[in-house]
Formats: sequence, structure tokens, C-alpha cells
Amino acid sequence: MLLNCDLGESFGAWKMGLDVDVMPHIDMANIACGFHAGDPSVMAQTLALAKEHSVSIGAHPSYPDLQGFGRRSLNMAKQDLIHCIHYQVAALEGMANIAGMQLTYVKPHGALYNDMMRDASILETLLEALSIYPSNLKLMLLATAQAEQHKNLADQYKVDILLEAFADRLYTDDGLLTPRAQPNAVHNEEKLLEQVDLLATKQSVLTATGKTLFLPADTLCVHGDNLHAINQIQKIKNILNAHT
Amino acid sequence: MLLNCDLGESFGAWKMGLDVDVMPHIDMANIACGFHAGDPSVMAQTLALAKEHSVSIGAHPSYPDLQGFGRRSLNMAKQDLIHCIHYQVAALEGMANIAGMQLTYVKPHGALYNDMMRDASILETLLEALSIYPSNLKLMLLATAQAEQHKNLADQYKVDILLEAFADRLYTDDGLLTPRAQPNAVHNEEKLLEQVDLLATKQSVLTATGKTLFLPADTLCVHGDNLHAINQIQKIKNILNAHT
Amino acid sequence: MLLNCDLGESFGAWKMGLDVDVMPHIDMANIACGFHAGDPSVMAQTLALAKEHSVSIGAHPSYPDLQGFGRRSLNMAKQDLIHCIHYQVAALEGMANIAGMQLTYVKPHGALYNDMMRDASILETLLEALSIYPSNLKLMLLATAQAEQHKNLADQYKVDILLEAFADRLYTDDGLLTPRAQPNAVHNEEKLLEQVDLLATKQSVLTATGKTLFLPADTLCVHGDNLHAINQIQKIKNILNAHT
Amino acid sequence: MLLNCDLGESFGAWKMGLDVDVMPHIDMANIACGFHAGDPSVMAQTLALAKEHSVSIGAHPSYPDLQGFGRRSLNMAKQDLIHCIHYQVAALEGMANIAGMQLTYVKPHGALYNDMMRDASILETLLEALSIYPSNLKLMLLATAQAEQHKNLADQYKVDILLEAFADRLYTDDGLLTPRAQPNAVHNEEKLLEQVDLLATKQSVLTATGKTLFLPADTLCVHGDNLHAINQIQKIKNILNAHT
Repeated sequence: MLLNCDLGESFGAWKMGLDVDVMPHIDMANIACGFHAGDPSVMAQTLALAKEHSVSIGAHPSYPDLQGFGRRSLNMAKQDLIHCIHYQVAALEGMANIAGMQLTYVKPHGALYNDMMRDASILETLLEALSIYPSNLKLMLLATAQAEQHKNLADQYKVDILLEAFADRLYTDDGLLTPRAQPNAVHNEEKLLEQVDLLATKQSVLTATGKTLFLPADTLCVHGDNLHAINQIQKIKNILNAHT
Repeated sequence: MLLNCDLGESFGAWKMGLDVDVMPHIDMANIACGFHAGDPSVMAQTLALAKEHSVSIGAHPSYPDLQGFGRRSLNMAKQDLIHCIHYQVAALEGMANIAGMQLTYVKPHGALYNDMMRDASILETLLEALSIYPSNLKLMLLATAQAEQHKNLADQYKVDILLEAFADRLYTDDGLLTPRAQPNAVHNEEKLLEQVDLLATKQSVLTATGKTLFLPADTLCVHGDNLHAINQIQKIKNILNAHT
Repeated sequence: MLLNCDLGESFGAWKMGLDVDVMPHIDMANIACGFHAGDPSVMAQTLALAKEHSVSIGAHPSYPDLQGFGRRSLNMAKQDLIHCIHYQVAALEGMANIAGMQLTYVKPHGALYNDMMRDASILETLLEALSIYPSNLKLMLLATAQAEQHKNLADQYKVDILLEAFADRLYTDDGLLTPRAQPNAVHNEEKLLEQVDLLATKQSVLTATGKTLFLPADTLCVHGDNLHAINQIQKIKNILNAHT
Repeated sequence: MLLNCDLGESFGAWKMGLDVDVMPHIDMANIACGFHAGDPSVMAQTLALAKEHSVSIGAHPSYPDLQGFGRRSLNMAKQDLIHCIHYQVAALEGMANIAGMQLTYVKPHGALYNDMMRDASILETLLEALSIYPSNLKLMLLATAQAEQHKNLADQYKVDILLEAFADRLYTDDGLLTPRAQPNAVHNEEKLLEQVDLLATKQSVLTATGKTLFLPADTLCVHGDNLHAINQIQKIKNILNAHT
């Protein structure tokens, strides 16, 4: 399982995330495209950093909402959302090409990601957006109990998908993430590493009710917000490497 | 001489310009890229309209200033300006590719255009931005008495230039446009058509002091803001066609 | 019944609405505050115009969404929405004071208005925002079959309300507006004037099913987007004046 | 001399400055108003924090430029700048009033501050903006060798001024700040404390050429970006208290 991480989330004078520290440890960088974070200069710097460490790059487009950091649902018309995605992906892809890099996937950000997982019509809108995009870009979504259905739906749009799992989040029986507001929603390090081990060896997680749920994840989402999170990445990699 | 026009300058609920009316009559559409006008949906619609009428498309990037419509100089650092241009051009180019179209040139908008003509360091920044852009994009600038020097400078960056002239504006002896605030800065229709005729037949204009100035323009900038301007385009085309 | 109208909806170089034409004919101007329309200069000009015609002024705050013109629901946290309202109302009130005018009411705009009428928690958030605002500002909302409950709820927050009716819209039996997408949702002039007459004489409307619904409106919303709408205002005023 | 500090410079998910740590140590908080930093929620929190520590509050308005953090000159028309200032000051003042606080001064931010000190027409525009503002707000500007002229100019507009000095910056003979790009532009702690002592005892600074320059400062600008800067504030206060 490859490690993906949200990066390039600074904006202007505001810094966010320890991009320089985390980039050497990950495989895939989800790069903000200017609508929730990441102005053009931040994007160029993030691309250069990803290139230096041979990290694959994906676009991390969002609803247009800087103040809300893309975390608030915005009720966009379907065509407006498609154009909004195209604009952001194209801007990042063009800047990647300038840096001699290729964009390979798209991971919706924040509320758009949640809306995609909650509302099939938004997932279809995103699939349609990628199906008419000239480059062959995969769509990253959450590996859930519906992974098979999501794959079939994506097939209809001839879009490949990447399924991601979370190391640090408690899963529901549906394979969704327990909302952060609930107790135990975020694992301590011991449980986190157990979850990684189970994902790596059995493609499964233990859900909140103690069930074993099959989750065929292609990639694991890790965090680069603080040094503690970055230190955990090495422990995660050790587990993954032991099972390769 | 091909006719170019600024288009796609609506934004959200606000409409500007008679794009549907003017598009059939022009050769090159300078399309706003979202920083002074033109949200993603407006861009997609403008590209579709250009495709319908087989009009060449160029990016019309700007300083980031929606409220000022890109008409106010913003003192950006060189690298920030380069990334700002790359972002806008890439966004439009990607959306053009989705529509099956190719971007062929870049015309800076508003204050950025004026700053480019006034300040060689900004012209060089724009040339550098295009010189490292993967696609082969020409830079459109004002045909002035310095056209030869501008061409030589662009050659150093291996960027082709497009020189544009204005039909409706009174020229200074330097081949610059008399500021709009001054009397006679904007020609009436009779003088406008005389200027087109002189440009078409002699590649020249009569300046404010009555001198004949050689202006080797590749393209003529026309306007699509109102029906009167669009009606004039046909008269301009009649003159140009008479001399082809 | 006083006539209210949304005004000051231009932004930067983009013009919207025939403010100069409609202002002489209305009693209350709902002025955009910069988040969906109305930059500071537009606001100052709109205030000056209202003063010239002795028109009462209200703030027309919105979700922060220029591109969407405030017409898209944005899922803001309660406190963020309160601060967002305070900021906009305070900005307009301060500018009104500079012009020697007093702000007297607040009418939420677009999606925020619809959300307020649909979701009692958002109505309460707006009432709370106004209850802690130093000036005594009324909240304008739609006169519906729930008008009495709305008034009671507002009383708990010690906020006065203004109930508005629409001349041109077909009502449901709940006193809500038939969505514009449905047939007959917008009245022709004959029906519009009949509805004004019924509102003026009987404080009632005929609903889509033919019922007579009591609607105790304090004010009637009119439009200033085009000359036809402005011409209708005179006819509306003639009816209202005949019954005063 | 009172201590003033720029605060409330976070925006949405981005944090900037150690506001909670520095607020107990200062006398005057210059609060961002949303155009370069400080969304409505950040403003409300900053006001609450200032109230808790009985800190005077001033508006810190800026050119509209979030990405550039207000550090880039924007060539605004005079009336647009006046309205832009009014909007920001009014928004903050209204929110201050909600919190039961009074706004007492305005300190232009970033490029606007620099432009005001460099270009008398911009200083006059700001004075005009405050002269027609209903509340009695002082304008904070840099104490320079022109302090007397600035005071006289402000008198013409019936605006009081607050002159500020910098503890950590090397002064030119004109009483301007040596640009940060130059060597020795920013003092080490020893020189910083010497400069505070000289300002407190003699209302003077030693300039880059070794001259003693009279600088009648009302307030000293301190920084709250990092713990080191905050620790220095206590040392600065010790010096100031020793001379009261």
C-alpha cells in the first residue's frame, strides 16, 4: 500500500503542514489547487519538492472556499462543479508539466470528498469530470464496504479508481470513518499500528462493533501536520515493508 | 491583419460583453482566466463559443484582482508573477484541451499589459514565464516604435510575439496609446476607419502630432462591449478584405 | 405596504440592476454588503442614491460566495455565520453613518434567505445575531402561514420582524413561494396586479390550489432588474395608494 | 510609550501569531479587518481577547489582497481607497461595539502603511477618510523627521495622529526604517534595548550614520510572532517602566 498525504496547503503568508519534513516519507502527494489552499507559488514549490523526492502527484481540488478551507459543503450546480474541478486540475497539471512531472490522480478535498462518499450523484459528477478530461487520471476515494459498487460505477465512466484507507480512524461497519466528534474516533498509536498491520496482512479493519471488514485499499492516507504524525509514518512503513 | 477581442469577461451572475454577437466576426479570442474575470463555467462557455466559430484562442491572464477587474497595478514579486501566469494559462489550456482546442497565444490583461509595455523587467518576466511553458505560446504585445527591440528581446527567450494595433485609439509618436483621459484619445468612426486603412495598406498610423509612424501589426484589437462596436467590426473587415 | 427592492448588486466593473431608475419608486433598499455583491464603492454609491430619494435602508447580507452570487447554500458553523452577518451588517451600517443615514433592518440574501425559511435553526442563528447587535435592527422574512410562530420566536430574541410578500410569485398553501422551475410559478402582469390588490385589501393571496391564505405582509418585494419590472412598480403603487 | 502590536492575522484554518501569548503584554492591538487577514470569526476572537486584557483596539486595514497579505502596493483610485478603508474600519468597529468595546485608532497595514509614508497623496486620502468618519479615530503613522509636518497636515483634516517608533529597526537619517534587505536593518537584542532606552529617555534614536535623531513617539511597535519576540517585550517594558 502506497502512502498518500495532503500537501501544499499553505496560502500566501500562511504556512500549514510540514511539507519539507513529510515529503521524503510518502509515495503520493495530494496537492491543493488554489480553491481551499495553495496559491500558484505554493503549488510550484510543492511540485518541486515532490519532484526532488520522486513522489507521485495528484490534484486535491475543492469547493471554492478559502475561508472555510474547503470543509463546508457548497451546493454547486452539476456543470459548475465539473468546470470547477477541470479548472483546478488543469492548473495543477499545467504547472506540473512545466516542472517536468505528470499528474496521475485526483483526490477531492474536504467537504467535496465527504459529499462524494455520501451522495452518489456527486461521485458521478466527479467521474464524469474525469471521464472527459484528456489525461488519464484516477479518482481516489475511500475504501468502504461499497468498494465493489464504486468500482463498477467508475468502470461505466472508464475512470480508474484508487481506494484509500486511514490508519488512524475507527471504522463503522459500513467501512465509513467514525465522525471525529465521537469518542475513540481517532486511534492511539498502538491501535493505529494494529490497523495498519491488519490492512497490510488481511486487507481488513476491525470496526467499532468488533467486526472484521474487508477493505481492499490501494493506498493509506497519512498526515504531515506535526512531527509526531511524521514519526508515525516510519513505523507505518516498517509494518508495510515487513509484509511486502 | 487578424482581429482579436477580449472575451469571457463575465463572472458568476454578472454578464459583460456581447460574446455571442461578436464571436462570429473575430479571428482570435482573448479569454479571461478567472483572476480578473471569467469563472470556470464562463471559461468553458467561452471556449465552446470560440470552437463553434473556429476562432483561435489565447489566454488573457491578469493580476489577481476581481474587484479592480485587473486594471490596477499590483506590485508582485517576479516569481509570484510567473506562477500566477502559469496557473491561469494552464487552467485555460487544460479546459481548452477538454473542448478539443489548442491554445496558441497569451495576451496579458489590463494593468499587467500596461506594465509590460512600460517596464521592460515585467516584459522579461512574462517572456521567461512563456519560455519555460511546455506549449509553444506566442506573447501578444502592443506594436510600438520599439517593436524591433521587443522582437529581439523575445528572441532571446525563444518566444514568438504577436504585435497588435488599435483601430480606435490615437497614437503618440512613440507608438503608444494616448491615455483615454486626454481629448481625442479615442477616434470617431471616420478616423477609426482611416486608421484601419492606413494600417492595412501602409502598416502605419498618423500620430497625435501628424507624423506617419510605421507599425508592423499582426493583429487588430476590436471590441465587443456593445452593438455599435460590433457593427464597426464589419466595416473594419471590409477595409481589411479589400487589401488582402 | 412598503415596497422593498434588492439593490447595490453591482461589483467592480460589473453592473447589475437599474438602481438609478428604480430607487425613486421604492421605500426600502436592501443593500448588498460585499459577500455576494456590492464592493465598498458600490455600497457608498447605493447609500448616496438611497439618501437622495429618502429611501429606508437595510443590510442584505449573504453567505461569502461572489461566484455563486450567494445563491448556493454553504454549510457554515453557527458562530461563523453569526460573525459573518455581524461583519457585513456593521460594514454597511458604518458606511451608512458616514453618509448620515441609519440602518433599520436586515434581509438575508439568496440561499441564506431560503435556508432561514426552511431551517428553524438558521432562523434562530440570525435572530441571535441581531439580538446581540447594538442597533435595533428588524429582520425581514417571508410572510407565510407560519408568520405567527415566526413572530413569537423573534419575540423570544427581542427582535422585531418585517414580513414581506411577493407580488409576482404563486404561493403554495403553506404560504411559500412555488419554486421558479415549476409552471406558473411567476405571475403574468394581470395576476400580479390581482395579487397586489388582494394583499392590499384582504392581506391575503390565492394559492396554487385556489385557497385564500391570510398573509399579513408589512412590505412587498419588487424588482429593479429591467425597465419592465420598474414600470410595473408604478401600477403596483397605484393599487396600494387606492387602498390607503 | 504604549506598546502596539499587529494581531488577528489568522485566516480560516491558517493560524498566524501568538495572539493569546502576546495580548497580556501590550497596550494597543492593531486588528486585521478581513482584507489581508482576519476573517469575521478571527476578528471576533481577537476582540474578545483584547477585552479580556483591557487592551485598546485599533483597525488595521489593508489593500484587498489576501494572497499577498497586503504587502503589495495596489494602485487604487482615491475614492475606492476611501471606501475600502471605511468598509474595513466600520466592520471592525461594529464588531467591537457588539463586544462592548470602542475603537480608538486606525493603523494602515503593510504596503498601505509604506505607501502612506512615501506618498503624501495617500496620507491625505487616509486623513480624508478618517475626517469624514463619524467616530473620532486617530491615525497611527511612523514617527519620522517629518513628524511635525505630518501633524500639521493631520490638523488640517482635524484628525489626531499617533506616532509610532520601532524598537528593532535601524533608522535612516530621515527617520525612516532601513529596508530589511540591507545589513544591520534589524537590531540584535542589545541594540534593540538601547534603542528603547534612548526613545524612552531622550525621545531619540541613533541613526545608521550615528546621528541622534529626535523622534517624538507615542507608541512603540512590538511583535508577537514568536516566543522570543514576546520575551523581549517584558525587557522593553522594564526599560519603559523605569523611566515613567
